[in-house]
Amino acid sequence: MSANEPGSATIVTAAILVIGDEILSGRTKDKNIGYIAEYLTNIGVDLREVRVVSDVAEDIVAALNALRHRYTYVFTTGGIGPTHDDITADAVAAAFGVTIDHDPRAVAMLSERFSPAELNEARMRMARIPAGADLIANAISKAPGFHIGNVYVMAGVPSIMQAMLDVIGPTLRTGVKMLSDTAQAGLREGDIGGSLAEIAKAHPDVSIGSYPFWSQTGPDTNIVVRSRDPEKLLAAMAAVKAMINSERQRLGFSK
Amino acid sequence: MSANEPGSATIVTAAILVIGDEILSGRTKDKNIGYIAEYLTNIGVDLREVRVVSDVAEDIVAALNALRHRYTYVFTTGGIGPTHDDITADAVAAAFGVTIDHDPRAVAMLSERFSPAELNEARMRMARIPAGADLIANAISKAPGFHIGNVYVMAGVPSIMQAMLDVIGPTLRTGVKMLSDTAQAGLREGDIGGSLAEIAKAHPDVSIGSYPFWSQTGPDTNIVVRSRDPEKLLAAMAAVKAMINSERQRLGFSK
Repeated sequence: MSANEPGSATIVTAAILVIGDEILSGRTKDKNIGYIAEYLTNIGVDLREVRVVSDVAEDIVAALNALRHRYTYVFTTGGIGPTHDDITADAVAAAFGVTIDHDPRAVAMLSERFSPAELNEARMRMARIPAGADLIANAISKAPGFHIGNVYVMAGVPSIMQAMLDVIGPTLRTGVKMLSDTAQAGLREGDIGGSLAEIAKAHPDVSIGSYPFWSQTGPDTNIVVRSRDPEKLLAAMAAVKAMINSERQRLGFSK
Repeated sequence: MSANEPGSATIVTAAILVIGDEILSGRTKDKNIGYIAEYLTNIGVDLREVRVVSDVAEDIVAALNALRHRYTYVFTTGGIGPTHDDITADAVAAAFGVTIDHDPRAVAMLSERFSPAELNEARMRMARIPAGADLIANAISKAPGFHIGNVYVMAGVPSIMQAMLDVIGPTLRTGVKMLSDTAQAGLREGDIGGSLAEIAKAHPDVSIGSYPFWSQTGPDTNIVVRSRDPEKLLAAMAAVKAMINSERQRLGFSK
């Protein structure tokens, strides 16, 4: 049974590795983690872990090797530009133990945008691709990303990363999509914690999360029920809604 | 020489561990990493790594143990509320190999907000604190965070996390602050990559980052120079600015 076949119980997992001092210094606020997380959830890939590391080769190599052996896919963002602090491609080559050099396919892509005079040594850095990698087209600025083994190397600039993810997405193996449904309780999280724990125990194949927030009327809670099985999701959500109604009555709220 | 003494060369490092399925599913977009990153940079603590893990005890324990042995401080966010999916305190106790129970100081804090009838089993979960930990006051919703060893456990709700960080900040050991200065090149990143690499080589104690963006006039680049030594920062920035002027002249831009 193929992993792409509906009904397959295969779970496909992923990690994100964000590379860049600018995120760790707080100077740049990351916008890629949330975007990729939502994208992967929507196509049936489970994001299990995210790491952010600085522009230090050994840290990138260590994180990459830890993640690529553990998850189906690893997606990196950042560090593939034309300047000296862009060391991601070299770190990926080191992690896989392969050589790295100018790739004629990448040079051809860059030549679509840059004249021979503009294609200086700095820009040619963006054509350095680990041996054995396939390129990921970049519709926006032409400099490609690449993938090698289960690692996908993307730009850090959000618009370019998103364009690359649109290229990658359809090529990924996906599992049964995680379904989710949300009920707004109209109650404080602490009022329903006990009952919610009982429901969670009675529905072991369903993940139930509780997220407090402030609504217009005061403290409130979203209950998010998640499962790969639509019937189990429905049953758990029915139990959650019945519990909310009963707790609201008990606490004297209008229906 | 104390690490807090100005002029001390001591470097104080930190990691952030974000705990929560809601971030990995993309349902909630993290706002804490960027905030803590900026906060730590401003007080002279170097954020070196960030990890995001799901609400799975063994994943939290493994990440926590990896990070707390490597960095001066670890800051966690998320998973300390009143519901069954809030397992951070138990995971921290497990990572440190200590017991966990209701802490009378935490119960007293919760009693400031909740009546005895409201202080149900779910809310009492928020008073479960690992043995040997100190509490972190929470001005907003009273339920405390805590710290044990070099690990600081904070709420995931941004307003509460920020209030807790304001309590923690003044108690931290800090190193010599990383200084930074930015020059807007008015040039494409690839035009200055070669010259920038030479400057970086000539100023080894200074970190030089290059961040492309789109300004009103087209592709542009911010050059960020960072150092703990103000004189070295000044010298590197002077070299960057001279290089920018010379490259702009060479490429026919107005001064």
